[in-house]
Amino acid sequence: MTQDNRHSVSVAAVITNEDGRVLVIQRRDNGEWQIPGGILERDESIHAGLKREVNEETCLVIEPHRLTGVYKNVRLGVVALVFRAHAVGGTAAPTDESAVVDWWTTDQVAARMGETFAVRVSDALSSSEVAVRIHDGERIISDNPASAHVARDGHAV
Amino acid sequence: MTQDNRHSVSVAAVITNEDGRVLVIQRRDNGEWQIPGGILERDESIHAGLKREVNEETCLVIEPHRLTGVYKNVRLGVVALVFRAHAVGGTAAPTDESAVVDWWTTDQVAARMGETFAVRVSDALSSSEVAVRIHDGERIISDNPASAHVARDGHAV
Repeated sequence: MTQDNRHSVSVAAVITNEDGRVLVIQRRDNGEWQIPGGILERDESIHAGLKREVNEETCLVIEPHRLTGVYKNVRLGVVALVFRAHAVGGTAAPTDESAVVDWWTTDQVAARMGETFAVRVSDALSSSEVAVRIHDGERIISDNPASAHVARDGHAV
Repeated sequence: MTQDNRHSVSVAAVITNEDGRVLVIQRRDNGEWQIPGGILERDESIHAGLKREVNEETCLVIEPHRLTGVYKNVRLGVVALVFRAHAVGGTAAPTDESAVVDWWTTDQVAARMGETFAVRVSDALSSSEVAVRIHDGERIISDNPASAHVARDGHAV
């Protein structure tokens, strides 16, 4: 092909504790609050990459549960795969990559996390089908009438 | 990063007719039977890429319904996103990219399509959660005990 259409693929996890709070990290490199995750390596399985990235950022050992959303950054060419997962070992703690590891209520997520990450949490905690959304790095973009409807009615986007 | 971890991302559709037969195409370039789909462009939305690729291979105008599986080729670094979709316009016909467009029963799919594509059809037609699988271009690879169990019990893989 004449154009390089390759994408970065990232994997991230929505993990809740017994109180329903969501595991969040503050990245050391840019100070942003996100759910744990990172870039999938080219020869790595999706589940293995998810486990590795979450461990690198939180010290937790996790098991993936189910895929809950796919999010494409159409400006940068990044496809993010987000999973519900649960901890099976370790204790949440800061690492080389994360300055703070915390558990937030869903209200805190909606108020303090950027829109493109907060929507991944609300999608993962809803019982609807897997979300497929596009964004520009700042805001969710309406891709079709169905997704626009969900965005208006179901989430703070 | 020191290594280029970018992936090709492909999109494909499982479309059935009123008899429950599955839309398949025979590619002109390599003669293989597949479900319609192709490579997502870097600045393109996932749904737009799906509609474009299916139209280029079948002349049909489709609407995506739901994501049914994510499949990574760990040898080549390709992530495939597969959707259930339905035709909303056009008539299925060969194109520059597809030598034959046909409607197959699920038995024909299992017998005549390569394993890594046949599993996308069986996953899409099952009512279970979104499948997440890895393969080497020829065969599905067991990624964890849960997926191995599904592969043994639920599908012809």
